[in-house]
Amino acid sequence: MYAFPTHTAASVTSGGSPSSYLPPILVFRLLSDDWLSVLSAKFTVISPSSPLSTSARAALVSAAYNRVDTDLLNQYPSLRCIVSSGAGVNHMNLEECQRRGVQVANVGETHSINVADYAVGLLLDVMRRITMSDQYVRNGLWVTQGDYPLGSKLGGKRVGIVGLGSIGSAIAKRLKAFGCQISYLSRKPKPNVNYKFIPNIYDLATESNILVVSCSLTKETHHIINEQVLQALGKEGIIINIARGAHIDETKLVQSLVKGEIRGAGLDVYEDEPNIPKELIEMENVVLTPHQAVFTPESMGEVIQICIANFEAFFAGKPLVTPVVAD
Amino acid sequence: MYAFPTHTAASVTSGGSPSSYLPPILVFRLLSDDWLSVLSAKFTVISPSSPLSTSARAALVSAAYNRVDTDLLNQYPSLRCIVSSGAGVNHMNLEECQRRGVQVANVGETHSINVADYAVGLLLDVMRRITMSDQYVRNGLWVTQGDYPLGSKLGGKRVGIVGLGSIGSAIAKRLKAFGCQISYLSRKPKPNVNYKFIPNIYDLATESNILVVSCSLTKETHHIINEQVLQALGKEGIIINIARGAHIDETKLVQSLVKGEIRGAGLDVYEDEPNIPKELIEMENVVLTPHQAVFTPESMGEVIQICIANFEAFFAGKPLVTPVVAD
Repeated sequence: MYAFPTHTAASVTSGGSPSSYLPPILVFRLLSDDWLSVLSAKFTVISPSSPLSTSARAALVSAAYNRVDTDLLNQYPSLRCIVSSGAGVNHMNLEECQRRGVQVANVGETHSINVADYAVGLLLDVMRRITMSDQYVRNGLWVTQGDYPLGSKLGGKRVGIVGLGSIGSAIAKRLKAFGCQISYLSRKPKPNVNYKFIPNIYDLATESNILVVSCSLTKETHHIINEQVLQALGKEGIIINIARGAHIDETKLVQSLVKGEIRGAGLDVYEDEPNIPKELIEMENVVLTPHQAVFTPESMGEVIQICIANFEAFFAGKPLVTPVVAD
Repeated sequence: MYAFPTHTAASVTSGGSPSSYLPPILVFRLLSDDWLSVLSAKFTVISPSSPLSTSARAALVSAAYNRVDTDLLNQYPSLRCIVSSGAGVNHMNLEECQRRGVQVANVGETHSINVADYAVGLLLDVMRRITMSDQYVRNGLWVTQGDYPLGSKLGGKRVGIVGLGSIGSAIAKRLKAFGCQISYLSRKPKPNVNYKFIPNIYDLATESNILVVSCSLTKETHHIINEQVLQALGKEGIIINIARGAHIDETKLVQSLVKGEIRGAGLDVYEDEPNIPKELIEMENVVLTPHQAVFTPESMGEVIQICIANFEAFFAGKPLVTPVVAD
């Protein structure tokens, strides 16, 4: 995605006065080409293949591409601070980081707005058949075959939000403006929230026309959308996933769609990205996008600034600005 | 779209007692297959090709398919009530109807929610590149070529609404929940509205990142989006049209898109439907749908009930329920 500059030990330590010293950070992946110059103004950027990498104390990782597991922590034993440019934490073994005294930050809140916007976009797209009718028009079928089959009205629909964190709350706020009836699942009822709390995923699915998955991926939420949940959602049900692929038992989802046991799906995430079950590719009642809900150019600038603030705090011996808090 | 039953004069007038008499209505087009049975329970449905059609006093037309012009009024001279199942009025020569004493109704408000939802869906789709990235995924390019280029963030964008009627107001309410800054153009400032009033389309375009066209099509609003407006909107500008194709000078819009003078467009309506300028078909920065913003199966039931209520009022000699009011 970007070209690393060539570093030598000299380039890190040379430069004379202490004021020109730029602390080294190990960078696994930059999500924007601009980031290299922005980071290089404050830090010495080290690539994973550099001989200096094993002595780095701080690292930038990308949620979509890097697993922060025992292997990585063994390979770079000097790391004491890892900043993830993503929203989730399931790519990181937080217990192992804690055991080794590695501080962890991510930039979750920054992404919530983008993800929430995207979830509503996917939902409208599936319900009103925007993507499929665009293809119908582009293939000349409007002229030869007349109207495209209608989609469904969003207003008044019962939407179940799986996980009412910052993303789920932003989705609920938006869908409220469309006249939807919002219910949500979480470990316990949220204070100061008017939406209906439903403590069980099966009940939430039964009471909803639409399920939107927006929780963290943990052992408890892995495959939270399983065969029984899909059956509870039912034939007219629609499911939107902008969280992580493994929230849904993808094999069962595909079976449900093939059998017409649910109506449709809008998916931005998959269990084995970038591979997508081949059955989905031919379906007209799904919208399939490449794990892009989280990022926009506008948010990229915010994200890198938050990453920098965390690194600066770390090197100054202060608490991280946006530490990952186990919930 | 549906098969008309065969009517004879006898089937209209026979049946014995006055209580079984079903007043005849001339039906040009049914937008749903269900409508025939619903209408037939209350009226005798006559097709335009029936010999009885020229004596019909009431008619149901579809905005997208029937022009209510001098030709039609001459062909069916007995008409005194025309109900349109659509939202707009530009397909009807209202002056000529008035001159001939033909009452006119449409079902505008029923459609506002659907159209507003759809406008936001189109906007999110264009900005976040949902349709195009779905095709990217389906064509296997995520696996072979990696990430799809990012779209833009909706939150915080300045949106100019062209026409703050029931549709425009519903769009504004929705986009407010996304954190957009709303301005609007209308003949005069609307009471009880907090959005910024801008009385000039050029100023609105200059001050907006996004223009959404949601006004009625009249002589004044024909080609309201012209070359100068597109230039004022500028290189990062996005335009959404869910109103009527003729609101936009389509030739100039295509030129602006080809030259990169604006960033993208989401179009549900066109100047010469179902024909679409061939230049648009290959573009990745547009979403093109087949004039479907207005209808959903859910709204179809409401629409036919409002049409029936208007016909019942007409045959009872009462004022129409949802008369078209020239604005």
